[in-house]
Amino acid sequence: MSEKPSSLHYINYLSLDKVLDAQNLVSKEKGKEAHEEMLFIIIHQTYELWFKQILHELDSAMALFKAEKIDESNIGVIVSRMDRVNKIMTTLVGQLDILETMTSLDFLEFRDHLSPASGFQSHQFRKLEVMLGLKIEKRHQFGGCPYHSQFEGEKKEEILDLEDNPSLFFLVEKWLERIPFLSMEGFNFTKKYEEAVNEMLEKEIKGIKVANLTDEDKALRIRMIDENRKYFERVLSEKEHNKAIASGETKLSYKATMSALLINLYRDQPILHLPYKFLRSLVELDHKIATWRFRHVQMVEKMLGQKIGTGGSSGQGYLKQTVDKHKLFTDLANIATLMISRSYLPSLPKNIKETLSFNHSNSHK
Amino acid sequence: MSEKPSSLHYINYLSLDKVLDAQNLVSKEKGKEAHEEMLFIIIHQTYELWFKQILHELDSAMALFKAEKIDESNIGVIVSRMDRVNKIMTTLVGQLDILETMTSLDFLEFRDHLSPASGFQSHQFRKLEVMLGLKIEKRHQFGGCPYHSQFEGEKKEEILDLEDNPSLFFLVEKWLERIPFLSMEGFNFTKKYEEAVNEMLEKEIKGIKVANLTDEDKALRIRMIDENRKYFERVLSEKEHNKAIASGETKLSYKATMSALLINLYRDQPILHLPYKFLRSLVELDHKIATWRFRHVQMVEKMLGQKIGTGGSSGQGYLKQTVDKHKLFTDLANIATLMISRSYLPSLPKNIKETLSFNHSNSHK
Amino acid sequence: MSEKPSSLHYINYLSLDKVLDAQNLVSKEKGKEAHEEMLFIIIHQTYELWFKQILHELDSAMALFKAEKIDESNIGVIVSRMDRVNKIMTTLVGQLDILETMTSLDFLEFRDHLSPASGFQSHQFRKLEVMLGLKIEKRHQFGGCPYHSQFEGEKKEEILDLEDNPSLFFLVEKWLERIPFLSMEGFNFTKKYEEAVNEMLEKEIKGIKVANLTDEDKALRIRMIDENRKYFERVLSEKEHNKAIASGETKLSYKATMSALLINLYRDQPILHLPYKFLRSLVELDHKIATWRFRHVQMVEKMLGQKIGTGGSSGQGYLKQTVDKHKLFTDLANIATLMISRSYLPSLPKNIKETLSFNHSNSHK
Amino acid sequence: MSEKPSSLHYINYLSLDKVLDAQNLVSKEKGKEAHEEMLFIIIHQTYELWFKQILHELDSAMALFKAEKIDESNIGVIVSRMDRVNKIMTTLVGQLDILETMTSLDFLEFRDHLSPASGFQSHQFRKLEVMLGLKIEKRHQFGGCPYHSQFEGEKKEEILDLEDNPSLFFLVEKWLERIPFLSMEGFNFTKKYEEAVNEMLEKEIKGIKVANLTDEDKALRIRMIDENRKYFERVLSEKEHNKAIASGETKLSYKATMSALLINLYRDQPILHLPYKFLRSLVELDHKIATWRFRHVQMVEKMLGQKIGTGGSSGQGYLKQTVDKHKLFTDLANIATLMISRSYLPSLPKNIKETLSFNHSNSHK
Repeated sequence: MSEKPSSLHYINYLSLDKVLDAQNLVSKEKGKEAHEEMLFIIIHQTYELWFKQILHELDSAMALFKAEKIDESNIGVIVSRMDRVNKIMTTLVGQLDILETMTSLDFLEFRDHLSPASGFQSHQFRKLEVMLGLKIEKRHQFGGCPYHSQFEGEKKEEILDLEDNPSLFFLVEKWLERIPFLSMEGFNFTKKYEEAVNEMLEKEIKGIKVANLTDEDKALRIRMIDENRKYFERVLSEKEHNKAIASGETKLSYKATMSALLINLYRDQPILHLPYKFLRSLVELDHKIATWRFRHVQMVEKMLGQKIGTGGSSGQGYLKQTVDKHKLFTDLANIATLMISRSYLPSLPKNIKETLSFNHSNSHK
Repeated sequence: MSEKPSSLHYINYLSLDKVLDAQNLVSKEKGKEAHEEMLFIIIHQTYELWFKQILHELDSAMALFKAEKIDESNIGVIVSRMDRVNKIMTTLVGQLDILETMTSLDFLEFRDHLSPASGFQSHQFRKLEVMLGLKIEKRHQFGGCPYHSQFEGEKKEEILDLEDNPSLFFLVEKWLERIPFLSMEGFNFTKKYEEAVNEMLEKEIKGIKVANLTDEDKALRIRMIDENRKYFERVLSEKEHNKAIASGETKLSYKATMSALLINLYRDQPILHLPYKFLRSLVELDHKIATWRFRHVQMVEKMLGQKIGTGGSSGQGYLKQTVDKHKLFTDLANIATLMISRSYLPSLPKNIKETLSFNHSNSHK
Repeated sequence: MSEKPSSLHYINYLSLDKVLDAQNLVSKEKGKEAHEEMLFIIIHQTYELWFKQILHELDSAMALFKAEKIDESNIGVIVSRMDRVNKIMTTLVGQLDILETMTSLDFLEFRDHLSPASGFQSHQFRKLEVMLGLKIEKRHQFGGCPYHSQFEGEKKEEILDLEDNPSLFFLVEKWLERIPFLSMEGFNFTKKYEEAVNEMLEKEIKGIKVANLTDEDKALRIRMIDENRKYFERVLSEKEHNKAIASGETKLSYKATMSALLINLYRDQPILHLPYKFLRSLVELDHKIATWRFRHVQMVEKMLGQKIGTGGSSGQGYLKQTVDKHKLFTDLANIATLMISRSYLPSLPKNIKETLSFNHSNSHK
Repeated sequence: MSEKPSSLHYINYLSLDKVLDAQNLVSKEKGKEAHEEMLFIIIHQTYELWFKQILHELDSAMALFKAEKIDESNIGVIVSRMDRVNKIMTTLVGQLDILETMTSLDFLEFRDHLSPASGFQSHQFRKLEVMLGLKIEKRHQFGGCPYHSQFEGEKKEEILDLEDNPSLFFLVEKWLERIPFLSMEGFNFTKKYEEAVNEMLEKEIKGIKVANLTDEDKALRIRMIDENRKYFERVLSEKEHNKAIASGETKLSYKATMSALLINLYRDQPILHLPYKFLRSLVELDHKIATWRFRHVQMVEKMLGQKIGTGGSSGQGYLKQTVDKHKLFTDLANIATLMISRSYLPSLPKNIKETLSFNHSNSHK
């Protein structure tokens, strides 16, 4: 490895002279360096670098979804990138352990200098939320102003633009709606599924009737099954679904929901395997972000505590609210309520099965 | 390593013939083995084994606190054991990743056989909560019955007995109350601290008055400092503190709170170093258990979803409620609200400083 | 959730009375309980429980590979189970942190009672190694006796039987050999690949010739490319490959190696996506087991140290040797040396591409 | 939190315009952006940021050790900072999982552009090694040149300067040598310890003689104890120790070794608690760095494989060699070989015990 002046050196390639020269301790400027301020700056910088990487991955995934026709092999690429995003989130959660080695006394040495700079001002994290699909009206409001009022000029424009562009949620919804398997020749999925559910519930009722139970117990259990039936009916009714959307209880369109259900139930079919992995990765991302917020609240509690009778610093309270409220793919997680055991799953006609399978396997049987 | 028939073999030492023969798949008994039931059983068994280890550590820590006189070196032992408990909790949180490889479809293959056996029935986990200090009246109630109604005979007795015995919370409170540093000769801690807080607030107000701010802004900031002052006053007043205890807002006694505050502020003194580590380990344990509950809720959401309009399965809802509500050492976490920068910390008189230090260092100076 | 005496209770379902009654502290029996012995027993029991789970997963994966015809959807199932095994390994590595809270002084309190029971005697871990494909002649020998001499009766039989049965390595090799894509009509993979490699090397040489380099430097770089060419030639020659097998340098057959190469290069084709994931999961498993051994050596070093001038306790030395030596899927990892950039990858004829794709996508274009 | 133009904004405080503008993809410059190059750059930048933080902590710890007199409370501060460094190392190991989502095919898209920039060129990591105490003559050599030949100008000076300055290893050794407990009035530690070891070995021999064993077995076990005795004798002899230093087998001076032994044995004494934690944190750091190197080797193996018959890329081979060879605190880890059970530990005279304890506890008994 002969070192030529002209050749690319690690230090230059990584712009380290820039990156490693970007830690300006305010406490030092003000005359008394606080040892822990370095950690505070560096950990936030690593967070921002990772946010940049996450945005890079989401950008690329969204570009693939915007394509006229989505190639099957692209789903594989997207799944890999979502996995990467989720692995990054795991690191982001884990490295809070480092920040928690800083105690409240250490923090007080430079805390006053910071105000009002605050983590809520992360432009990239706001972008991330908007790109995933968080709408301004669904946001937990912090203080009296809309969340983007803290940015100015270009930075503000960028956020407002993103709000107007299709989000990942929107793109996924459209993709699900386009998937052509809901009514294939000779196989109306929703109808078949409904029949299967009814068959399952009937069988359960029969089981209860012959079981060695008191009459009271039997009645109770049958009532539970009845409630279950009503749940399925409501979820399968397009009309009811649209009501739930109107009331804000659900977001994902009826058609997209049915496609997601089909994918979840028939994931073992080769063509649906990766779409299933993809839907799962979205739920995983939602959960990882929520875990990050949750652990973030804990970290703040260790550093600042929670004033008795005041409901915590406003920042803390805000963070706590967003743990659940800012989740985006709950509708996909809730598909789990609609799963039925493989033994009740309507079996696919041979021609459909072939359609969902590899060309190769059909021919060489 | 010659193998004698008489010598202790690994298999016997670990009673592996018992432990590895304790996985009875109900699905197999019922005629159709569900592949994932093994995982479900084994992960729960490892949870229970680790709970046993946690109880073993807590038992020993509590025994040391019950001693007539607590040797300083014992605090070191207790801190090590609490650290171990916290490392176990890290594993318990982490291994949820394994369970999450089981999908809802897999779970449905054997779920019906389980009912009504449920994780809420973990006797050891209930013991753990009671030993830490969770009182029955502070529990989030699940269904209409008290939590111990699910146990019978000896198991129920054991829980009821534990409720009557001193909890870790209680023992820690008594230990804090006994710590002899609150009023040492020539150093009344609470008074000194109060003065320091006032000095700090005065200085802040002065700073605002000369700052380059609008009058409106100045008024706002002074109002904020005023609220802060009221907060400190209220917290330092024994009477107000007792009111907060009566209303259920606080649990830790006034005296114990003042000791905990002293330990947090003067942690750099050798004799207070380990007590500080210990208090911190309790907050950490609270957070780890909360994180475990939180991730548990997520796992259930992935497996079962959350029925729209029903507020989730009752189990899920219960778990979600306990994340915050079953925390025990919030009062210790909230000591962080009372921290003041080291620069305002009342300096200790020389004789006090020596008392808090090692004998050796005093003599050889 | 009314509790019936007849119904399945958590405690019974998990055989907790057995599992939680299997911790017999020898130190207690001998009259002086060592606090840390409980941890020592419990962590080893959780290891054994997880080993049982890993064997359960491998068993099922191997059964699927033994089938006459391997359904494509089975590869998806196998990948999921290998992922689970890898997640378990992550927990096994991570929980060493718990054991490391026990210090050498703690361990000495009961260590003498244990001898000669030792972790090397884990029957399940030996089974795992044999099932993966570790041959007795490739094992690092511990002391003078073959590794199974420490077992007796049924336990010994079981190990010897496993040695005679097809291992996962063997099954994967056969599966790779059967994959029908090496020479499809109009596409001889090995030949095409060889041409692509040559084209790549030619282009690199051309680039060097016109580059702004000294003659000396040019000569050096061309020599490096030449060595590279020889490497490719050797690897692609069936004769050379068989020599490498004979000498023990390689294990995987020529045909299986070519298939693995094809899968790695054309992973973006839908039908090869999951096979690729599967091959990768095997390399991952190898690495996770090696990491576990590595961290295990560190743990022993913390507990027992390494006697200067003796090369460590024999146990430690044994473990250290196995980290690399007991790896099984190195040949699959080394496929990475044969990767060429996507821009040089021979493009597949349209008919081949369709064969490797989904039936559906072909028809609806 | 009203936003004033004059006030400190998060973006400015963290110099984000600099940090987030430092990702220049060479592949993009050359006309064809490789998606994964962003990840490659960003992960290396986070590594460098964390290295900066580690250097910051080590610098401060070393400054405290250089002080004329080391205050006991400083050891607490140093332990906290070493803990932080170890937590950072945990993140550095963990985040390799992110890099491993990049496959060899992805890497090939931009790999050629990088050459010869390489991770071995991390100036900060070289500094870290030198600061810990790695001497140039102990380094595994990479290629034909000394490791610092890859740096020029100021960067090279800095490394050469560090080589001439006291390392952490040196400072710790001097500190251990200064610790005044080896021969306190009426307690010669080394002599007492030697007696205790002999007593222990005698008792073991007696036990064997009356045990129910064959004569052959008895002889074998007595021979083992004899070897053990020789080991202790050799280690306790200053002359033998100096020979071991001369031969390069050991590095830590005799006196420092004895102090480390004393600290390890009497860690339960309050004044020795933190010194013990500190020594342990150094062994931990050694292990964490070794684990990072080990996982790094695995990551490279996944990305590049290992050419059969060539012993891997030179980079990989270099890394593999450093895993063990670049460890610095092995002598401290090996103190574990000298531990004896607490029951044999020479009890401290009352006056010594008081000296090692808190002033307070003595007075209020």
